[in-house]
Amino acid sequence: MLSPKFNELVKSLQILPGVGTKSAQRMALYLLGKKRQQGIALAETLKNAMLQIQECQSCHSLSDDTICTICSNPKRNTKLLCVVEYASDVMAIEQSGQYHGLYFVLGGYLSPIDGINASDLHIDELVARLQQQPIDELILATSTTIEGQTTAYFIAESCRAWVSKITRLAQGIPIGGELGLMDGLTVHQALQNRIVFE
Amino acid sequence: MLSPKFNELVKSLQILPGVGTKSAQRMALYLLGKKRQQGIALAETLKNAMLQIQECQSCHSLSDDTICTICSNPKRNTKLLCVVEYASDVMAIEQSGQYHGLYFVLGGYLSPIDGINASDLHIDELVARLQQQPIDELILATSTTIEGQTTAYFIAESCRAWVSKITRLAQGIPIGGELGLMDGLTVHQALQNRIVFE
Repeated sequence: MLSPKFNELVKSLQILPGVGTKSAQRMALYLLGKKRQQGIALAETLKNAMLQIQECQSCHSLSDDTICTICSNPKRNTKLLCVVEYASDVMAIEQSGQYHGLYFVLGGYLSPIDGINASDLHIDELVARLQQQPIDELILATSTTIEGQTTAYFIAESCRAWVSKITRLAQGIPIGGELGLMDGLTVHQALQNRIVFE
Repeated sequence: MLSPKFNELVKSLQILPGVGTKSAQRMALYLLGKKRQQGIALAETLKNAMLQIQECQSCHSLSDDTICTICSNPKRNTKLLCVVEYASDVMAIEQSGQYHGLYFVLGGYLSPIDGINASDLHIDELVARLQQQPIDELILATSTTIEGQTTAYFIAESCRAWVSKITRLAQGIPIGGELGLMDGLTVHQALQNRIVFE
């Protein structure tokens, strides 16, 4: 073995999703070759992030503080609440620049087979929040998978008594998507929910 | 911005080769989700590797100490020297289990256009080494690219006076390779260097 420390690094890099032995080796050699300072910086950023990034106590998204920058932003519309599965979904919606309400991150979707029930997804907390702080609209932005849709239905049922307007994201052909490559269900939804051409 | 520390981590992960914004985000979310301890362990392994892995002073390969485990292994055949471009090539040859001599890592290939000349590749040091410690065979295992072949020719010319036998790795069809998918040059080489069927 050339360098036990090198092998340790290669093995350690493989905990990253999508990184196998070959890519890990390539990463390690690249950093050792010319990017040692950046490698050290990455190590420090990574450690700090692991130790310091927490879950926002209000929306369960990622946050540098107890309450995240979105929940604590007075310019946000507190009458709109968007329910998503993961913090990554918050980022996707934020990137659209189209939404100015608050979020509620479930931390996953209902999946009784995997032992993930309503209590694991803070759904009781969501209902309690709606009771205490009434809102105008609850947007369900869970995945368009079967599990995501089931989760949305479950949340809609649980919250219906406390909020008058419950919506979900439009389903249809994505922008730039080729009709010929779309699956039947998507086309079905797109036809069913077609909108007036203006 | 949801979490400046998160963005910093995503940006930092992108120094890894082959990692763009989306994969970096995926990695960061994965580690933050359930693998924080492993993330911290990776950070520490990475920092240690960056600070402690050095270049073997004898062969210029990667090493945990001043002299690497191959150069300092008394069981290695010191009469055989294999010249390669990178430490990763040493690993590839070691994996074959077929070679028991020593290595000499150039750190690249001759490429005057990029300003990489003989002096950048320790070639003088290689010649001096052959003068002081005579060997039986010098194996040139540089890449089969034009630059790699040029580098091999240059080294062969520089060392010919000091070593009687200079060889290079066989070129031909790789094991498992389909003839129909091979490029013309490889087939040309494979035909020209064909060996007696025994």
